[in-house]
Amino acid sequence: MIRGWTVRQAIVFCRLSASGTTDDKGQSPVALQKYDLLADMTRIAVLTSGGDAPGINAAIRAVVRTGVDRGWEVYGINHGYAGLIAGDFRPMGPRDAGEIMQRGGTILGSARCPEFCTEAGRKKAIESMASRGVEGLVVIGGNGSQTGSHALAEMGFPVVGVASTIDNDLYGSDITIGVDTALNIALEAIDRLKITASSHHRGFLVETMGRNCGYLALMAGIAGGAEAIVIPEYEMEPEGVAEVIHSAYERGKPHAIVVVAEGAHYNAERLGRYFQEHRDRLGFDLRVTALGYVQRGGAPTYADRMLGTRLGAAAVEELAAGRCGVLVGMRKNERATTPLGEVVSSKKPLDENLLRLAGVLAK
Amino acid sequence: MIRGWTVRQAIVFCRLSASGTTDDKGQSPVALQKYDLLADMTRIAVLTSGGDAPGINAAIRAVVRTGVDRGWEVYGINHGYAGLIAGDFRPMGPRDAGEIMQRGGTILGSARCPEFCTEAGRKKAIESMASRGVEGLVVIGGNGSQTGSHALAEMGFPVVGVASTIDNDLYGSDITIGVDTALNIALEAIDRLKITASSHHRGFLVETMGRNCGYLALMAGIAGGAEAIVIPEYEMEPEGVAEVIHSAYERGKPHAIVVVAEGAHYNAERLGRYFQEHRDRLGFDLRVTALGYVQRGGAPTYADRMLGTRLGAAAVEELAAGRCGVLVGMRKNERATTPLGEVVSSKKPLDENLLRLAGVLAK
Amino acid sequence: MIRGWTVRQAIVFCRLSASGTTDDKGQSPVALQKYDLLADMTRIAVLTSGGDAPGINAAIRAVVRTGVDRGWEVYGINHGYAGLIAGDFRPMGPRDAGEIMQRGGTILGSARCPEFCTEAGRKKAIESMASRGVEGLVVIGGNGSQTGSHALAEMGFPVVGVASTIDNDLYGSDITIGVDTALNIALEAIDRLKITASSHHRGFLVETMGRNCGYLALMAGIAGGAEAIVIPEYEMEPEGVAEVIHSAYERGKPHAIVVVAEGAHYNAERLGRYFQEHRDRLGFDLRVTALGYVQRGGAPTYADRMLGTRLGAAAVEELAAGRCGVLVGMRKNERATTPLGEVVSSKKPLDENLLRLAGVLAK
Amino acid sequence: MIRGWTVRQAIVFCRLSASGTTDDKGQSPVALQKYDLLADMTRIAVLTSGGDAPGINAAIRAVVRTGVDRGWEVYGINHGYAGLIAGDFRPMGPRDAGEIMQRGGTILGSARCPEFCTEAGRKKAIESMASRGVEGLVVIGGNGSQTGSHALAEMGFPVVGVASTIDNDLYGSDITIGVDTALNIALEAIDRLKITASSHHRGFLVETMGRNCGYLALMAGIAGGAEAIVIPEYEMEPEGVAEVIHSAYERGKPHAIVVVAEGAHYNAERLGRYFQEHRDRLGFDLRVTALGYVQRGGAPTYADRMLGTRLGAAAVEELAAGRCGVLVGMRKNERATTPLGEVVSSKKPLDENLLRLAGVLAK
Repeated sequence: MIRGWTVRQAIVFCRLSASGTTDDKGQSPVALQKYDLLADMTRIAVLTSGGDAPGINAAIRAVVRTGVDRGWEVYGINHGYAGLIAGDFRPMGPRDAGEIMQRGGTILGSARCPEFCTEAGRKKAIESMASRGVEGLVVIGGNGSQTGSHALAEMGFPVVGVASTIDNDLYGSDITIGVDTALNIALEAIDRLKITASSHHRGFLVETMGRNCGYLALMAGIAGGAEAIVIPEYEMEPEGVAEVIHSAYERGKPHAIVVVAEGAHYNAERLGRYFQEHRDRLGFDLRVTALGYVQRGGAPTYADRMLGTRLGAAAVEELAAGRCGVLVGMRKNERATTPLGEVVSSKKPLDENLLRLAGVLAK
Repeated sequence: MIRGWTVRQAIVFCRLSASGTTDDKGQSPVALQKYDLLADMTRIAVLTSGGDAPGINAAIRAVVRTGVDRGWEVYGINHGYAGLIAGDFRPMGPRDAGEIMQRGGTILGSARCPEFCTEAGRKKAIESMASRGVEGLVVIGGNGSQTGSHALAEMGFPVVGVASTIDNDLYGSDITIGVDTALNIALEAIDRLKITASSHHRGFLVETMGRNCGYLALMAGIAGGAEAIVIPEYEMEPEGVAEVIHSAYERGKPHAIVVVAEGAHYNAERLGRYFQEHRDRLGFDLRVTALGYVQRGGAPTYADRMLGTRLGAAAVEELAAGRCGVLVGMRKNERATTPLGEVVSSKKPLDENLLRLAGVLAK
Repeated sequence: MIRGWTVRQAIVFCRLSASGTTDDKGQSPVALQKYDLLADMTRIAVLTSGGDAPGINAAIRAVVRTGVDRGWEVYGINHGYAGLIAGDFRPMGPRDAGEIMQRGGTILGSARCPEFCTEAGRKKAIESMASRGVEGLVVIGGNGSQTGSHALAEMGFPVVGVASTIDNDLYGSDITIGVDTALNIALEAIDRLKITASSHHRGFLVETMGRNCGYLALMAGIAGGAEAIVIPEYEMEPEGVAEVIHSAYERGKPHAIVVVAEGAHYNAERLGRYFQEHRDRLGFDLRVTALGYVQRGGAPTYADRMLGTRLGAAAVEELAAGRCGVLVGMRKNERATTPLGEVVSSKKPLDENLLRLAGVLAK
Repeated sequence: MIRGWTVRQAIVFCRLSASGTTDDKGQSPVALQKYDLLADMTRIAVLTSGGDAPGINAAIRAVVRTGVDRGWEVYGINHGYAGLIAGDFRPMGPRDAGEIMQRGGTILGSARCPEFCTEAGRKKAIESMASRGVEGLVVIGGNGSQTGSHALAEMGFPVVGVASTIDNDLYGSDITIGVDTALNIALEAIDRLKITASSHHRGFLVETMGRNCGYLALMAGIAGGAEAIVIPEYEMEPEGVAEVIHSAYERGKPHAIVVVAEGAHYNAERLGRYFQEHRDRLGFDLRVTALGYVQRGGAPTYADRMLGTRLGAAAVEELAAGRCGVLVGMRKNERATTPLGEVVSSKKPLDENLLRLAGVLAK
């Protein structure tokens, strides 16, 4: 799409460019900063990309039903950006969005798409939408996915991102779709370990997901009453963990739970091995539970259904109002939009107060 | 406690007044607007009152552990205001607050206390604390409980309320302890009914708690994908409900779920009876599930443990800072304090946008 | 089908009779006692009828996959006997039985069918199968459904019943599909009520399903540690219930749970009303939770998936071996077959030892 | 206790031997094969040993309440055989067994006790009971624990074992306390992985507990619809697993789940590493979830509460009837007793039919 063109013009352009036309400098038309949303937009599409998160289906449902309520047509795109390029679209009516809100995962599927990282791939993607008359796109996903949506917006295509990742490491939203469910699943595991730990006076390690972000581990650790929490943001040496556990036993605690983020240097595997190797000296070992993808797959909690519903509806409103190139998320419990460029170039900090609170509460 | 007195003076006064002394106008010392928190406060107490709510134990734990962390002594009071009057106190250390966060209900118990509604009763309550050197009180509860805490504050006793009720009808906090768990339990029931409803093309009524407030029903209805929601704030005639269900069937829905607040004029019993009586004409009846107190009793969710933890810690901070006579709650996802007088005299409105959204999404 | 005919002959007959032919006595061919299963049976069908029960989908999956494994074709019939008469069949391959085992309800649906209670209706049903070359039928359901399958067997059609009902009132199987899940859901509710009951020293009534059978209430009451259990088989007067509760309080119990079967004369509604009316004299009232269809709709437990799997596979083996007109169920934890005539004419007794045990354990 | 002595005599003996007396051959009184249960037994004890299992508390409750119902005194022994030797006893009445049935773990605790493996240790244990007038012991546990109880029985002490282990590897009971809960927890994890797996077309490895026994993995695999199951009893090479997964994808399955027993040579760690190393050639890797002790710690299911209740009550009946030196368990869904000598010297076989069924059903 050329700077200043309307989407309709872009669609025409895309059709032409598909048959060989380039822009007036003989280059492919990337890096457009502006676009014009036609007042009569009637056809949008929605895709999910990156890791699935419980609540995504509620967002899809809200996009479809609020879009249809406006008189629009809504397409679902299968398998993320790969399906976008390949043209794997399906029209979705209200019934197609029925009975999905209570299910985890994403009914649209997700897939890796190295091709979309190239300009050629993204051009194909825009052509794929243009050729179907799709004039707006909702991208539900986390950091990687919104980097993709930002690239599309840069090329001038009207796109709105919806903040979704269980890792809660996406700038622009205090909380993202899937986090609440993932935390509840982690807590359920911790509760169970505490029960068996109390019977045996044993120590347990629980590894949560979260990639390089310690949020899941920190919050699960606080709400689970963990004795120690090991996260990438505040690394802890094994001997420090051992000291905390010793001290907990001395204060009369019947068990010790250590929550570890998968992204910590001393993750569950390394920490478990260290304790095994130094077992005789330390006086105890730590049994490991690695939750893995179990945290992703649960039925979405109330909060994640509600968050998905609100953000999905908000994305449609943004498109309708012509406010594109943004991420819709929550800030201070209210809907907030952030330019995608800011989203992908910023890092969300971890609240240090919470770590301090964790220390006090574990006493 | 007389206006301008310190707590220590009040304690002396209370001891005296217990043996017959009154204030300088010959009246019992009620309706004091001010008090002075001693800088060297070292002893506080915590009680739970009114309906129990999942997450209360997390709040108790946070009060105990953050209080002890400050070097204070913390007393738990059994059975609410009744125990306060009767002097049913127990000292609580960090271990007494162990293994309770993951449990529903309240380990301190709750009870009705008509005596506390009288000035004489409240005076006894203050004496009960004063005689033990208790200089600050945390009251965890909803509207009724905070009316009580307000009365104590009016009499000059340093008290901080913590917002707790599954009904979410307490002014001063966007969300209260227990709401998230209650909503998740209601959703679980709705999900299950949908499954059996789909097999039979049947209609189901689910009655939620919430007293005169429709919040629980409205939010469970939205997140549960209910076809109709009946709440006290927007009453619906049975024929209107029937129309919605007919329309849902016509649009191809495999089932119909109606969520009803217990406080609605047409609650589950009345609505169920109406549909039974008009079954032949309407073409279907509605099976009733009345969740009742099941909604209170679950293990607290992540959100309720976190909310209880934060508000419990905040209450201790407020006492420490001498900001008493307030409720601690959450506003826009951040801790907020509201004067208890405002809390008990205001009504929390229901967000009408949500009701509109519910209509669009049910399509 | 005429006595002594083979199924192939019956199919021919049915095709003829569909165009007006009757038997040699000018009557429709009902009440056949015998049939011949062709050695080369290659096409069977499966239907679900009556109340849905968690685990039914596991049985459907097992019928489809073990049938296909034998080289057979398997048809699913939608909406029970109604779909059988209407010819609502769909061929099912292994993939059609994928991702269903973990879901409650029945993917085939269920419906009432008054027409099937008539001979004419059943004749149509047989014709419906015969015209598609279906030579054997698996009927998954409870008492009403197996009465239907018995009628088909009487008419000579090869049918095998699979024992499925959450009520556990079906003769011929110690345990039926859905019971374990229903009991776990009831227990979950009781556990939650106990938590809130302990906080308030309150009494609660829980009403379970079970129609005229007290099994669900009795077992949930024992495993839930109920103070009193009211079932149709051993009715209890309200005053007797009150006495049990009083006695429990006197022995220091923090709560009182009464589990009531919906089929008891004093069901939850009547018992609740009685306690409300005599509240002042009795000193307490009982809060009511009516679980209703929530008990049906859960994701099947391990035991119900396994039971559905085993019985579904067993039904195919019975058809393959030519042992028709029987119900497959479990006796003493092993697969057992019972003639359908015996199934529909016998009543399953309740184990009185369990009721005695309940009394001892509640102490 | 000397052959032919009564328990009362043994008690006297134990008291004497504690002060230096030995038997008439100058040896410590071990290896007695017979004992006499006094008709007037009035004091028994119960301990839990080895791994905890959900449902154990129901068994403790049943021992206490049915024992007390007979007019006996019942002691709980803390921390297994270690507490038995150390004399860590507590009298238990009906209220002490209240509110425990719904909780996982064991309220009596469990611990390792190398000393009990020596004759001297076991002699101390008998003296410990004799000195308190304890005339019968219930030991709730699995293989290791029943080896201990067998040793006590050999020494002439009246002991009854209760079959409890989540591994289901104990001879003498078709099913043991804790297995049903452990399987339901494993299934819950598998269900969640399937949801996320379907969104991404991914493969997942789930490792279950079970020590050297493949029962948990096999049953969870069948009821979870796993594509492959790897157990110690029927080892599978990584290439075989890869083949099964390839074939599943080719048949159109949206995911692949492999359930692995921790005791298999290719456990989750080894299998995961193999797939990682051969990822390029195989075309996919497998993400690992190691459930670990999470499987032990759940709230007991209906089946485990009922099983614990029945076996606990049965143990008391056996003691009352003087049938000691046996394990109480379930065979063909009925209570069965097996001599402890047979229990500890026999191996429970795995049902090969189930493995075959698993193959057919995975199609």
